[in-house]
Amino acid sequence: MGSLELGANQYGKAECRLVRVDRDGDTHAITDLNVTTTLAGDLAATHLTGDNSGVLPTDTQKNTVYAFARDGVGEIEDFALRLVRHFVTAAPTISRARVRIEQYTWDRMGGHSFSRGAGTRTATASAEGDQAWVVSGVSDLVVLNTTGSEFHGFPRDRYTTLPETTDRILATAVTATWRHASLDQDWSTSFAGAKQRLLTAFADTHSLSLQQTLHAMGERVLDGDDNLAEIKLTLPNKHHFLVDLAPFGLDNPGEVFYAADRPYGLIEGTVRRSDAPDAGLAWW
Amino acid sequence: MGSLELGANQYGKAECRLVRVDRDGDTHAITDLNVTTTLAGDLAATHLTGDNSGVLPTDTQKNTVYAFARDGVGEIEDFALRLVRHFVTAAPTISRARVRIEQYTWDRMGGHSFSRGAGTRTATASAEGDQAWVVSGVSDLVVLNTTGSEFHGFPRDRYTTLPETTDRILATAVTATWRHASLDQDWSTSFAGAKQRLLTAFADTHSLSLQQTLHAMGERVLDGDDNLAEIKLTLPNKHHFLVDLAPFGLDNPGEVFYAADRPYGLIEGTVRRSDAPDAGLAWW
Amino acid sequence: MGSLELGANQYGKAECRLVRVDRDGDTHAITDLNVTTTLAGDLAATHLTGDNSGVLPTDTQKNTVYAFARDGVGEIEDFALRLVRHFVTAAPTISRARVRIEQYTWDRMGGHSFSRGAGTRTATASAEGDQAWVVSGVSDLVVLNTTGSEFHGFPRDRYTTLPETTDRILATAVTATWRHASLDQDWSTSFAGAKQRLLTAFADTHSLSLQQTLHAMGERVLDGDDNLAEIKLTLPNKHHFLVDLAPFGLDNPGEVFYAADRPYGLIEGTVRRSDAPDAGLAWW
Amino acid sequence: MGSLELGANQYGKAECRLVRVDRDGDTHAITDLNVTTTLAGDLAATHLTGDNSGVLPTDTQKNTVYAFARDGVGEIEDFALRLVRHFVTAAPTISRARVRIEQYTWDRMGGHSFSRGAGTRTATASAEGDQAWVVSGVSDLVVLNTTGSEFHGFPRDRYTTLPETTDRILATAVTATWRHASLDQDWSTSFAGAKQRLLTAFADTHSLSLQQTLHAMGERVLDGDDNLAEIKLTLPNKHHFLVDLAPFGLDNPGEVFYAADRPYGLIEGTVRRSDAPDAGLAWW
Repeated sequence: MGSLELGANQYGKAECRLVRVDRDGDTHAITDLNVTTTLAGDLAATHLTGDNSGVLPTDTQKNTVYAFARDGVGEIEDFALRLVRHFVTAAPTISRARVRIEQYTWDRMGGHSFSRGAGTRTATASAEGDQAWVVSGVSDLVVLNTTGSEFHGFPRDRYTTLPETTDRILATAVTATWRHASLDQDWSTSFAGAKQRLLTAFADTHSLSLQQTLHAMGERVLDGDDNLAEIKLTLPNKHHFLVDLAPFGLDNPGEVFYAADRPYGLIEGTVRRSDAPDAGLAWW
Repeated sequence: MGSLELGANQYGKAECRLVRVDRDGDTHAITDLNVTTTLAGDLAATHLTGDNSGVLPTDTQKNTVYAFARDGVGEIEDFALRLVRHFVTAAPTISRARVRIEQYTWDRMGGHSFSRGAGTRTATASAEGDQAWVVSGVSDLVVLNTTGSEFHGFPRDRYTTLPETTDRILATAVTATWRHASLDQDWSTSFAGAKQRLLTAFADTHSLSLQQTLHAMGERVLDGDDNLAEIKLTLPNKHHFLVDLAPFGLDNPGEVFYAADRPYGLIEGTVRRSDAPDAGLAWW
Repeated sequence: MGSLELGANQYGKAECRLVRVDRDGDTHAITDLNVTTTLAGDLAATHLTGDNSGVLPTDTQKNTVYAFARDGVGEIEDFALRLVRHFVTAAPTISRARVRIEQYTWDRMGGHSFSRGAGTRTATASAEGDQAWVVSGVSDLVVLNTTGSEFHGFPRDRYTTLPETTDRILATAVTATWRHASLDQDWSTSFAGAKQRLLTAFADTHSLSLQQTLHAMGERVLDGDDNLAEIKLTLPNKHHFLVDLAPFGLDNPGEVFYAADRPYGLIEGTVRRSDAPDAGLAWW
Repeated sequence: MGSLELGANQYGKAECRLVRVDRDGDTHAITDLNVTTTLAGDLAATHLTGDNSGVLPTDTQKNTVYAFARDGVGEIEDFALRLVRHFVTAAPTISRARVRIEQYTWDRMGGHSFSRGAGTRTATASAEGDQAWVVSGVSDLVVLNTTGSEFHGFPRDRYTTLPETTDRILATAVTATWRHASLDQDWSTSFAGAKQRLLTAFADTHSLSLQQTLHAMGERVLDGDDNLAEIKLTLPNKHHFLVDLAPFGLDNPGEVFYAADRPYGLIEGTVRRSDAPDAGLAWW
């Protein structure tokens, strides 16, 4: 029985809610973010003896997020990069930093008025020494096809009761993250294109399984942007069950469905470029 | 000390998740609902002795929701009315019924593909005997003005520390319900107009208090539709606090804000027509 | 078509999270609260013109909650009463006040160490002029009987498919509020007794319907405390469905259940004393 | 720019809600679980062509969970092991399986009556070929110390405003998972001991940082059970801020606190045995 030792560890400030207003005369813009910082390095002292001389406080990390926003936020990939590059030099003990940002959608209603839209844009930047990595993504992107989805040909064992189907509703809430091979990008254009390709691939893929749809979505995103090295998709299968109306003397030709909560299928997969650079610290 | 007696009571099935698909050739439409039924009447027997001969089971209520959807859903006000009119005749004990529906927003991406949007449309129908009432509404409609909001002139007591302001962010998540004077309506047009007026009133009202904005929103909705008798608004004040950047040697001219979670102001009010018909059973 | 007028309105600060520590030597006690204040009165000016001279700011309400806690909190009914009696005199426009408190459960692990327990105690005090009312209660009290619950004898119509049962799981999350006839009470003893009677009535009532259980719980609470005028119970029927294992060649003699999320039955009812004083402003 | 290829992938059924009742005469016991299954292996065909011949449906996985419960559940570690050992042989394509279980706490009120308690017990079993791994844990274990916590000696930079403190509230919601070196265990006794040591280490550690408390908790758990190879802890720092009552002419000697929601510190770390066996597939 060996001695005990400190293993992997990290710390930071989670969910700093930052709203930035940019004013161009009477036309304002808003940037609405949820920022989480995470630092790692040589932090044994505080764990073992409570010596905090190497611990940049999470409160300071939060202050840094707000102070950096004074100079503007811009694209969230850039803002996350500015922050991680600062943090890896902020204390001698800190050698690695990650900043994860969620950006909420707002639609313009007027010069200074906005309504909240659906879906979230995400970015995670990581740094170690002079190196940095960026992963962009979306979450809470809920999509549904009323047809064009089949599921059959699966193995049947003692516990199988699921009937085969050649027409079902396919619905999911997309969480996707894609890794950039280089950091010299137009983040806004890259994001808009990737999101659009995700949506169109979901919409126009005739699906024999949610895995096939996942792969098609991943391929479409990478195919459209040479700078993307890898994409990871997490797709809950939001089941819609056809309701049996026969007890009421009614048929149900694919019209009335029950949308279930739990349990749900959960399909996760990645598509990558065969010659992609190593992911390094690009924590997902 | 008096004897004990059964007081007000009701029961039903909450949150029936119903998705209806309408197919017009290759162009499909979806209606995505959360339906809650509530019945009341002479239900003393089951409470006092467990005699269920007058209790239309909540499971039957759920089945009825799905079976009725077989004939189409249409506007949620109509669907709720069909259901309550059925329920008040479904068992001799049941004299009152209410059906509340939440309808989720979906944006079309293709003939059979959709993405989930923001905001929820609501409708509540109530019936007793031959009478019926309808209340329409919205929820989860999150809006924000970056300027055009002041708050000053309030009383100051021993516990007051809030500074007066002539320029602040005003943000809220609108829950609004409006009661129809008659049921002979084009629900879709009525809803679209009311929602649009809510949004424009929020956007173009120069606000001295969230109460003033609430009242302006209510007036605007009623002003645009003679059939609306009353509107109730619930507006959480989603505080955005200007971050003090002075400790970092920075000013903050209305640019960097912290979006707080709790506590929050909660402003509730109604605007009504002076000659509005009585609300009757129009449960909110 | 009549003119528009301001209807019922109120405002306040929701969800002030207050933790109070009391120190008796090395033995500490904590009181962990979520406090919501609501004021009403003559507030037309701010709604109509933005004149805030009668609007005690919600920020001041929050400050008052924290400042009053400096003198100790004690029982939440007393703390809520202190606050509402202050608020109704805090500004000439304010004539009615309500304070609702949720108290979270903590179990002692040591002199200054605690772990969070289940269930929430609640209290709501209301005041108008010299009068005041108190309602106590519980929420998030989740209970389950594995047997002793039947449901049969209900009417069957075209939409009924539910089989009758003489043995099912009965589970619910109790939200209950009970109104005190007078305010001269030992709140702690009263609460402990009411909660205990709720639990024992749930456990030892052989149930023919959830309504019958609800009524038995309400009667039990009132029977044990002459000062209680009325009790309101909200009981979601957390359905547990027996899983059909026959496709796998297995029986299922009441052993394996699927715990469903939605939809759920929702049973609401009140039990009251026939000579109970009027509820007045005792908002539930 | 290389060709695209399928990367890491897995799939399964998330959140199967299973309640098992065991009857010993009039004394019943319940086991209340949330079970998530995840399978991986050679699943390229379904991703690339929609050929599902190797895809054991997630519906079948769910059925298997319920069918296996017919023979009893027992300790969740054993139930998870039974399931993963089945799944890795259930289809030729499936080479790896993981089952994660959350078990909810119920306190006995009578022979067949229970009330839901706080905290969740967790277990994850993983298998590949003949090998298997088990990780046990807790989540939602919320604890608080009113004193015995300091935080000072940290570096100060341009963005630091946090004052040093020698006495603060320390509160967290513990998520911990610990890996077993061998599978020949009395899971119930092991779990009870580990949980108790977590709690007592939190309570009796005089803390100079939450990292120090984390490490002390991890050491305590491993010290008490030679079979534990590693423990991972995730501890949000649930900040309690002393309220400034000076504007109201009041002091605040550590009595009145504001419990904040966001942002929060997030401290994560592991403690491991220097000669611990490799984690293999013991997915956390």
